[in-house]
This record gives sequence, structure tokens and C-alpha cells, in this order.
Amino acid sequence: MCRFTLKWLIISIAFALVTAPLGALGQEILPSWNDGATKASIVAFVKNVTTEGSSAFVPAEDRIAVFDNDGTLWTEHPIYFQLAFALDRVKAMAPQHPEWKENEPFKSILAGDIEGLAATGEKGVVEVIMETHAGMTTEEFNSITRDWFASAEHPRFKRHYNELTYLPMRELLDYLRANGFKTYIVSGGGVEFMRPMTESMYGIPPEQVIGSRIVTKYMLKDDKPVLMREPKVDFIDDKTGKPVAINSIIGRRPIFVAGNSDGDYEMLRWSTAGDGLRLGVIVHHTDAVREYAYDRDTHFGKLDKAMTEAPERGWVLIDMKTDWKAIYPPAK
Amino acid sequence: MCRFTLKWLIISIAFALVTAPLGALGQEILPSWNDGATKASIVAFVKNVTTEGSSAFVPAEDRIAVFDNDGTLWTEHPIYFQLAFALDRVKAMAPQHPEWKENEPFKSILAGDIEGLAATGEKGVVEVIMETHAGMTTEEFNSITRDWFASAEHPRFKRHYNELTYLPMRELLDYLRANGFKTYIVSGGGVEFMRPMTESMYGIPPEQVIGSRIVTKYMLKDDKPVLMREPKVDFIDDKTGKPVAINSIIGRRPIFVAGNSDGDYEMLRWSTAGDGLRLGVIVHHTDAVREYAYDRDTHFGKLDKAMTEAPERGWVLIDMKTDWKAIYPPAK
Repeated sequence: MCRFTLKWLIISIAFALVTAPLGALGQEILPSWNDGATKASIVAFVKNVTTEGSSAFVPAEDRIAVFDNDGTLWTEHPIYFQLAFALDRVKAMAPQHPEWKENEPFKSILAGDIEGLAATGEKGVVEVIMETHAGMTTEEFNSITRDWFASAEHPRFKRHYNELTYLPMRELLDYLRANGFKTYIVSGGGVEFMRPMTESMYGIPPEQVIGSRIVTKYMLKDDKPVLMREPKVDFIDDKTGKPVAINSIIGRRPIFVAGNSDGDYEMLRWSTAGDGLRLGVIVHHTDAVREYAYDRDTHFGKLDKAMTEAPERGWVLIDMKTDWKAIYPPAK
Repeated sequence: MCRFTLKWLIISIAFALVTAPLGALGQEILPSWNDGATKASIVAFVKNVTTEGSSAFVPAEDRIAVFDNDGTLWTEHPIYFQLAFALDRVKAMAPQHPEWKENEPFKSILAGDIEGLAATGEKGVVEVIMETHAGMTTEEFNSITRDWFASAEHPRFKRHYNELTYLPMRELLDYLRANGFKTYIVSGGGVEFMRPMTESMYGIPPEQVIGSRIVTKYMLKDDKPVLMREPKVDFIDDKTGKPVAINSIIGRRPIFVAGNSDGDYEMLRWSTAGDGLRLGVIVHHTDAVREYAYDRDTHFGKLDKAMTEAPERGWVLIDMKTDWKAIYPPAK
């Protein structure tokens, strides 16, 4: 696989460097990407798998592309957006929970003491997630999520969280779809937290969003069937969970995969180990000025093993600082 | 909902009775269905939700249709096809398991004693399923399944199992898709048992097949990532599991739902309880000559509560004997 990839890269990058700037209709391909090896690798891959008669041709129905979300399609610092949502929910719900002023991890959250929350460890974080994500119907949770996106702002960029998607990755999603790919999100984030926003943010419909899940339970409420969200983990869509979920839900092995952390390692390996031409890309956060710079040493989006093995496995590192002309879409 | 359905039925059936025989292009709609109230209900529903300006109009992306499989899209008697597969596998694997001759439930299966198998109860059946469905990679299981479909024959009809799909339901799938619907299978059967065949049988791709699952585990085999099927139940896609799975995987509430047993009751209720126009249909097995006749009293596909409540909930019963001109596609 690796040698095939290298040979193909050498042959086709030269071709792609010439043709990349302009697509078939004269539109510029991936306009927010700087020309260079990264963009050329992506364009060459797409041309190869979509050119009939090419030895790497893949029929449209098998052109499955999977994207991690946090740190791959939108920002994940200073904390995961879903964690920011949970902390905001604790504050909003506090009046109904006077006991939280005395009990951790809520006490620390209400005092704005993130170190205190961190000290409660995974147990504390899970408790916060369950308290804020369960105990309502799926439709009620959908409304709560939409309301939060419409009001909350990122602490550094002072924009709504759903505006902090990466413009170059949105172009990449569009480019793949224009070439017959079906694009999926495969994220450690909660599937019902993402779904209300993915269509407008990325053009990805609910049925193409895979994520972590808590248990939902069918029941009758005033003789009307509803699905209640229960405070119990059903599935964690991270690490080995990602290929497992792709197989159980999509039932095909992707030929294109994008991630940014070691949580994507198994998805990258499994997807790119299939037969034929495959491409794995990794967003490397190298731009502290326009976004953030981190890799091996961070609490959110640690990239270590996947970066170490990228060269031998043929995975392409996207250098955010040099490969991207812009990070976010312009503010409205 | 119920009154709305009735009013709409009265208004639109007359219209549909006139227009049903010929579609927009002059092709006959649902040619294997006899004209009558059942066919008219389906055609009227589709016309209403697809006619722009109609108060019942539904945008294409929300036209989700879900179909049970066993007894709804293909035959489920004398036993579920997947159980027939498991019994055949026990026989094929027996030479590697000499101990089976002495141990239940395998002893009964090898002796062709279905009563003896039944006496081992659910525990025995689960043991057979695990022994025959786990312990291999997902790709190996895919091959085993394909091989079985290519060789095994139904005991009564002497045809391959994948030929015993209902022609009128295949036309219904085509008709819905031609009207912008996305068609899904939501079955109690194993998702990886169905997927190798659903595209050729029904035009339904793997990512639109939802079913029961055993646990799969990511691991390296000769340094190559694989997914191993483990002898442990992950999810049972039956009864309340069906709306739960539809929500977690599709993330939209279907507007059309087809089932045939009480295993589909909660899926019928949840789907048809949504806002706007919805249609639920139930295949009623009334034709002992061409297929089978059963409802309240059977081990496979018991239809009791859903049939009792069908009138009050506006669910349409499909009478196999009188509504269908043909059951199966012609033999090749």
C-alpha cells in the first residue's frame, strides 16, 4: 500500500500541480488552500479515483469520505465546544439546583474554577455531561442545542461557535461531494449535539453524522411516543470505536479519511488499509496566531502516535499555517 | 392525527383511484398491486407529500421511508431465513466440532430435530447464532453469507432465499425512490447478514440498512487492522429498539413506515406520531396458497397488537391475497 501510494504520488503530483488551480468548469479548486504538495496530493487523489479507465478508479457508491469534527472541521480549543456547552448549561440550570453550590464538580464550574473541575477528573466531567445532556426528550435536547449555538460566543474569537469552522475544510467537503463522494462526520462528540448544526455548517445531513451516544429510551408521554435521553453512556465514538461505528453504520470502508488527533488513529489505519487507492490526511495545528498551535502535549486533540507514523503510512499532514490562506469564513 | 388522516383519505382516494393506474410518464404505478383502497392510499399519500403547494408537502430531504425486512420485504416462514442460515452453518461446521454430536442445541440441529432445538429455548438459539456468526472478521462473514445465498434453497419454494422477496414491495421501494424518498431497512435481522444482498434485492445500499448487531472489535491481524465479530450481543433492533436505532442512526423521523408484526409496533407508532402527513402500512399474511397465512398465532412474525390498533391509528393493512397480483418475481 505504502509503496503504491508513493509511486502514485510522484507520478501524479506533477500533473496535479499544473491542473489544480482550475477545475473542469474554470472554477478554482480549493481556493483557500495555498498551492503546494498538500493541495496537490488531495487533488491528485480525487482525479485518480474519479477518472474512468484509471487503474485507481472507484465507483461513486464506494466514494465514502469520513471526517473527524473537533479540531478537523472546527476549532477545539481552549476546550471542546461541547464541554463549553455543558458548562453553560450548568450555569443556566443552577437556579433549579441550589445544592450544586456545595457539590463538586458543579461548585467549581459555578465559581468559574476550571482547575477545580479538572481535579474532579473523568468522573466529574461525565457527571456534568449526564446532568446537562440527559433527562429530556431528543426533541427538547435539539432545541436546547440550537438555542445555545444561536447565543453562546467563543471566548477568544467572540463569534458563535458554529462560525468557527475551517473554511478550507468546508471547501474540501464541497470538492469531494462535487466529485461524487458521500461525506460523513465520525466524531467523538455527541451525535445529537452535532446534528442540529451540521447541515448548515458543512452541508452534511443528520443521517451522515456519526458520534458518541447516550442511551435513549422509547416511552409514552401523555400517550405520545417519545425518546427520552438517559444518563448512561451507550457508545463512545473515539479511537477503536471509530472504525467499529463506520462499519456498523455505513457498512463500507472509506477511501478518504481526515482527522487531527490520536483519537483518529484507528480510523486512519483501518480506512487506508483497504484495497486500492486511499488517502488519509491529518490537520496539524501549527498556527498560534490565527488559531492554535499544539500537537503532542495538549488535553484537547493530542496528536502524537498518528503524527509519528504518518510518513510510513502515507498520511498527509496539513500544515494549517502554510497550507491554508484563511482559517474561518469571513464574519457576516 | 387520526382525524386528519381520515379526512385526507376521503378527499384523496377518489382522486387517486382515477390517477393511480398511470404515472406522469404514462408508466403504470405499482403494476403488481390490484387497484383498490390499499394501493389508492399509498398513491394518494405519495402525491400529497410530493406536490409543491400541498398543505402536506414534505421537502425531499425529509422523505424518509423505513421498511422492516422479515415478512415485510421477504418471506419469514417456515423459519426466519437467518435462522435457516445458522442451521446450515452448524451442519457445515460440524466436522470441526465432533463434540456437537453430544451437546445441545447442536445435537438436535444435526439430527434435523427442530422440536429439540425449540426445547432449548432462547438460550439455545442465541448459542447457535453466536457460534455461527462470531469468531471471524467482518469480511470473512460477508463471504460466508454471500456463499450461502448463492447455494441454499428454501424448503418449500425451491428457490434461493434472495429470490423470495415480494415483487409488490420492490415496486413500492422503487416508486418511493422515484418520488424522492430515501428508503431504509430497519430489521430485527443481523445488519451484516442483510447487507451483502440488499443492494441487488431491493436497491438499498449498505448505509441504509439498520439491523441487530453483535459486538465487533478492532484488532491487528498480521499487522493489518481488521474488525473481529465477537460472540456478544451489541444491539437488538426490534420493538422499542427500532425507533431508538432510527433516531440514533438516521436522526430524522420517517414519514412512511412498513412492517408486518408486533416487532414493528413501536416503529409504527413513533413514525406516524410526528407532525404532518404520515403513512404506516402493515403486510398481512393472508395467502396460504401463494405464500403463508398467519397473524396472531405464529412463532415468526406475530401480528396481534399492531393489527388490533391499526384502524384507530390509521395504519393501512395490506391484504396479501387480494392486494397483490404476484408475490415473488418470476423465476429466472
